[in-house]
Amino acid sequence: MKKNITVGREFGSGGREIGKRLAEELGVNYYDKEIITRVAEKSDFSEGFVEKIIEDGAMQRNFLSFGHSFSEYRCATTGITEKILRAQKEVIESLAETDCVIVGRCADLILSEKRPFRLFVYADEQSKVKRCRLYAEGEEKNLSDKQLLKKIRAIDKGRKKLYGLFYGKEWGNRENYDLCVNTSNADISSLAPCVAEYVRRWYENK
Amino acid sequence: MKKNITVGREFGSGGREIGKRLAEELGVNYYDKEIITRVAEKSDFSEGFVEKIIEDGAMQRNFLSFGHSFSEYRCATTGITEKILRAQKEVIESLAETDCVIVGRCADLILSEKRPFRLFVYADEQSKVKRCRLYAEGEEKNLSDKQLLKKIRAIDKGRKKLYGLFYGKEWGNRENYDLCVNTSNADISSLAPCVAEYVRRWYENK
Repeated sequence: MKKNITVGREFGSGGREIGKRLAEELGVNYYDKEIITRVAEKSDFSEGFVEKIIEDGAMQRNFLSFGHSFSEYRCATTGITEKILRAQKEVIESLAETDCVIVGRCADLILSEKRPFRLFVYADEQSKVKRCRLYAEGEEKNLSDKQLLKKIRAIDKGRKKLYGLFYGKEWGNRENYDLCVNTSNADISSLAPCVAEYVRRWYENK
Repeated sequence: MKKNITVGREFGSGGREIGKRLAEELGVNYYDKEIITRVAEKSDFSEGFVEKIIEDGAMQRNFLSFGHSFSEYRCATTGITEKILRAQKEVIESLAETDCVIVGRCADLILSEKRPFRLFVYADEQSKVKRCRLYAEGEEKNLSDKQLLKKIRAIDKGRKKLYGLFYGKEWGNRENYDLCVNTSNADISSLAPCVAEYVRRWYENK
């Protein structure tokens, strides 16, 4: 049985850090942003465009930004989105043929038949703003706490929308996960090995 | 800083077993049903009545079972419920003066100012029915799966109601917990030590 660990996460909760540490602890592959590159290659769109569609739920905004009638572009955009989501599914299914940790991209739902270990990482808003500030790059460094929070909420809203719209499940609802970890004020480097040991034992019982 | 670990749990999810094992692993006291006994002593009601009020949300049913007008008994029952909940608060606050694991009884909310470690344990319905069947006693042994499921749902509905009505929070919503553990088909004896180590490290970072 392949060990596939999927990590759903709120933006700024440290889900990526937990994912990386889990992969190290378990000695398995780690996939995150490179999924975008592979989906872009497969679907013939740019990485930036693919990221907008499958990462931050830009879909709805696209409907309104072309200057044509809503219904025309609804069809066009839905077609594009479906093409990208299909490519994403193929990429993720192919990666899951080896033991691995996959962060985001609805991998938990895409791989549901393989029954992956599904982790969800979350935190309170104060902690998420703090963590985002720590890793801010370029223009993000100039954002106020209020602006960062607005960004965090918008990204998570997009993730929730995509998860619900295309897969019919509620993103972040504990019922869809095997373990939900709250990283508010937590030292992830200290906690991640316990999560890794939990995953190891979970697979031993399968 | 006292180590207080509170365990919220769906009925049949094995929350009590996890709680007991956590207390053993961490070498701290364990409180569960004895809270009912102490609350009964403090509030001068019988254990059975106290349990109905603070355990399975019987409150609403009481409104309708006395044969008098709804509003008269709403006042009377609310008074009784408040007396019992006040006694429960005092009992739990007193227990929390030592390191301990407390299962249920809204202890996470009652102790919120002490910032306990808040665990929530849940499972899918099939697993909960299976676990209930395993520990069924007396008349429960004769219940069909459908009847057991009805009981599980009713008890959890009561817990959710009490949590929301008297404390204004959503029972089982991950945001109110530090760790949420899905025990569906899980070997709790194997996983509990990982949760204990997680709790130990969580406290080290405080």
